[in-house]
Amino acid sequence: MTRYLLERPHRLVSLTFFSERYESAKSSISEDLTILKRTFKARGTGMLETVPGAAGGARFIPYVTQGEATQFVDEVIASLSEADRFLPGGYLYMSDLLGRPNVLRQIGRLIATQYLSDEVDAVMTVATKGIPIAQSISEYLNVPFVIARHDSQITEGSTVSVNYVSGSSSRIEKMALSKRSLAPGARVLIVDDFMKGGGTLGGMQSLVKEFDATVAGVAVFAEGAFEGERVVPNYTSLLRIHATNDHVDVTPGNFVEQIYTPDRVSLLKK
Amino acid sequence: MTRYLLERPHRLVSLTFFSERYESAKSSISEDLTILKRTFKARGTGMLETVPGAAGGARFIPYVTQGEATQFVDEVIASLSEADRFLPGGYLYMSDLLGRPNVLRQIGRLIATQYLSDEVDAVMTVATKGIPIAQSISEYLNVPFVIARHDSQITEGSTVSVNYVSGSSSRIEKMALSKRSLAPGARVLIVDDFMKGGGTLGGMQSLVKEFDATVAGVAVFAEGAFEGERVVPNYTSLLRIHATNDHVDVTPGNFVEQIYTPDRVSLLKK
Repeated sequence: MTRYLLERPHRLVSLTFFSERYESAKSSISEDLTILKRTFKARGTGMLETVPGAAGGARFIPYVTQGEATQFVDEVIASLSEADRFLPGGYLYMSDLLGRPNVLRQIGRLIATQYLSDEVDAVMTVATKGIPIAQSISEYLNVPFVIARHDSQITEGSTVSVNYVSGSSSRIEKMALSKRSLAPGARVLIVDDFMKGGGTLGGMQSLVKEFDATVAGVAVFAEGAFEGERVVPNYTSLLRIHATNDHVDVTPGNFVEQIYTPDRVSLLKK
Repeated sequence: MTRYLLERPHRLVSLTFFSERYESAKSSISEDLTILKRTFKARGTGMLETVPGAAGGARFIPYVTQGEATQFVDEVIASLSEADRFLPGGYLYMSDLLGRPNVLRQIGRLIATQYLSDEVDAVMTVATKGIPIAQSISEYLNVPFVIARHDSQITEGSTVSVNYVSGSSSRIEKMALSKRSLAPGARVLIVDDFMKGGGTLGGMQSLVKEFDATVAGVAVFAEGAFEGERVVPNYTSLLRIHATNDHVDVTPGNFVEQIYTPDRVSLLKK
């Protein structure tokens, strides 16, 4: 039952279903769910929402507690601060982190915590490095993810494309998304691995509008230092990366302060 | 305990750890593990290997039974055979499937079944569409994945690149992988979404060799029809796609027949 619920976050599974699957009375399933609920809460795994009545059941909503979130961000900072990650031009090598299943799992759980009670129908990113992040979030929100591309391919069918100004380099770029990707009215969470001026994220916002869909939020793994106004005013970031000529400073982004507001923390305690 | 093991496949978790975490005697943890083992087996979730003795513990090894594998392949075929997926030029639209968390989870579990008892240190793919598949497999094998790219980026640091002949179009292409990605001697599982002549997969094989690493296997989601000899002789595919001028036939690939050999099936029954 634990496995079944964990693999289907945000979806209501009926008592009847469990009772048939495990050939047990609904009353004992109900009792087991109560135990699970307590365990999930005690371990900070997530919330188990139980819906009473004949049409009732249980829904697993993953979240990360503030303590765990802070600890994770600190761990990532420690590992990104290793000297051999510094690349010429003030860049930081972080592709290895974004290829480790345990790191991606935590990123997915964190961002899903942000959309605990908001409706999200799809996660969107642009190729290439945002994909693993989008996929992890999509798993924990249990919604599909879509990938916009700079080169539109024949296997995508007809596409919708937008031009946008890359904020940091002021070049005009183009991205395209398959016409079949998003339904009108869908609530779309935009994510990427890194944001500087926010131009790419702005491009994704334009794409969402072209599909008559709505932006549910913007989340990035890391933000870089940027002078001036960002194309995307509202976003969350797990990390802040500040590069100088000879080294890179990594500090926590705005995620923890934005997400663990008193309201939300009390919701998690329910 | 279920959640802890499910999130850390292929890793041995010690009895001592569980006993401290849950403040229970090792004997009761042991009993619980026996129950879990039975449940995992009965539900086809996977194997729970228990290692006896003071240094012992339990290791969760996910797998998919032959029945479930066949059913999944059939479901994917049914959904890919919808008429509106046909694209001009004999292509098939399948990006939506490879963006659904439940489909990706099953693909990951299936391919992980193939490497149940083989050592794999990393999963490799090439951008863009193989990434979600590589990530899912990496989750179930609990090893990192690395992404080769056609355009090497400044954020990858120094890279190793190879040229290869794209089997289907006979063009010469290039792919690069960050030098920091793979350790010498690593056993690498190569995956992609689609294979025609196998040129791209051959390019990845050359890359693996450049890193003094070994190819542990080659797995693709779908293979297309191809006349002549493939660059990659040994591979598994979940699907076979045969396009004609006005429609596309999707049939099962060689996965089920290659993987569910009598030896392996008896291993799963243990």
